[in-house]
Amino acid sequence: MIILGIDPAIRCTGYGVIDIRTPDEMYILDCGVISNKPGVPHSECLRRLSGGIRELIAAFNPDCASIEDAFFGKNIKTSMILSMARGAIIAALAEAGVPVYPYAPRKAKRSTVGTGTASKTQVGAMMAVRFGISVAEIPDDATDALALALCHGQVAITAGMECLLPPPV
Amino acid sequence: MIILGIDPAIRCTGYGVIDIRTPDEMYILDCGVISNKPGVPHSECLRRLSGGIRELIAAFNPDCASIEDAFFGKNIKTSMILSMARGAIIAALAEAGVPVYPYAPRKAKRSTVGTGTASKTQVGAMMAVRFGISVAEIPDDATDALALALCHGQVAITAGMECLLPPPV
Repeated sequence: MIILGIDPAIRCTGYGVIDIRTPDEMYILDCGVISNKPGVPHSECLRRLSGGIRELIAAFNPDCASIEDAFFGKNIKTSMILSMARGAIIAALAEAGVPVYPYAPRKAKRSTVGTGTASKTQVGAMMAVRFGISVAEIPDDATDALALALCHGQVAITAGMECLLPPPV
Repeated sequence: MIILGIDPAIRCTGYGVIDIRTPDEMYILDCGVISNKPGVPHSECLRRLSGGIRELIAAFNPDCASIEDAFFGKNIKTSMILSMARGAIIAALAEAGVPVYPYAPRKAKRSTVGTGTASKTQVGAMMAVRFGISVAEIPDDATDALALALCHGQVAITAGMECLLPPPV
């Protein structure tokens, strides 16, 4: 089961692609960020996010995607810009027929690191251990995306890799 | 100059395509809604919005698009869902190289109907007059989209149909 984890943001969207074969055999196929420099118009940022996700789908043909759930930040404007990024990304996934499962950031951290308040460094260290790679190989902004992918993988494993999953968004 | 006006929403996105040749010669090429039934998952709604916008671009090859600007509603959740719809739509426009100009709903109504607080019915009546068609031919949910398109057309005419326009989003 190939899972694409996505931690969306207009300027820096983290992604992680993992391959879960059994509970003990899982690999990182790719991880990184889709970044947009400050000052780039939102329309161009959204175009690049959408195109980046499509490239990942073409390269890895994921069975499903796990994306950070919408949450209500302190700053409404920031939350709305983040929602635009989510919209462009989810549309690209849906167009390719990739089912999308949302997880709250705390839930993803709790189920993969053991605590919902883990720092990026802690999440990175745990991902390195879980996937047997060096922490230096994981870009900082991709750690949460890997945790999202792994979180969904654990849910899928618990469900016997069947479709006993919560309905996609 | 062909302008695609869009009044986005996850369940019912209004659109209007107008052709402005001179300040006195303007036509509605198409107007209508992209609707999603209640209960349809957001991912499917976004896929349909994105696909619908692409179909309109293919059919009318608009020079630019005018979209309702993000505004902060009373309900944060609703505002965030609306932002997702905007994100999917703006990404589809940007991918096709269509520049996107945002206008606040009040600004669009004020510049086309004369008052920022005009009702849907008033906007519809004014659009019918301006474009010389029967009000019955304009779906209710497309009136604001037509006003958005016309608002941008007026800005473009004032600027001598040149690119002396505010920068696109």
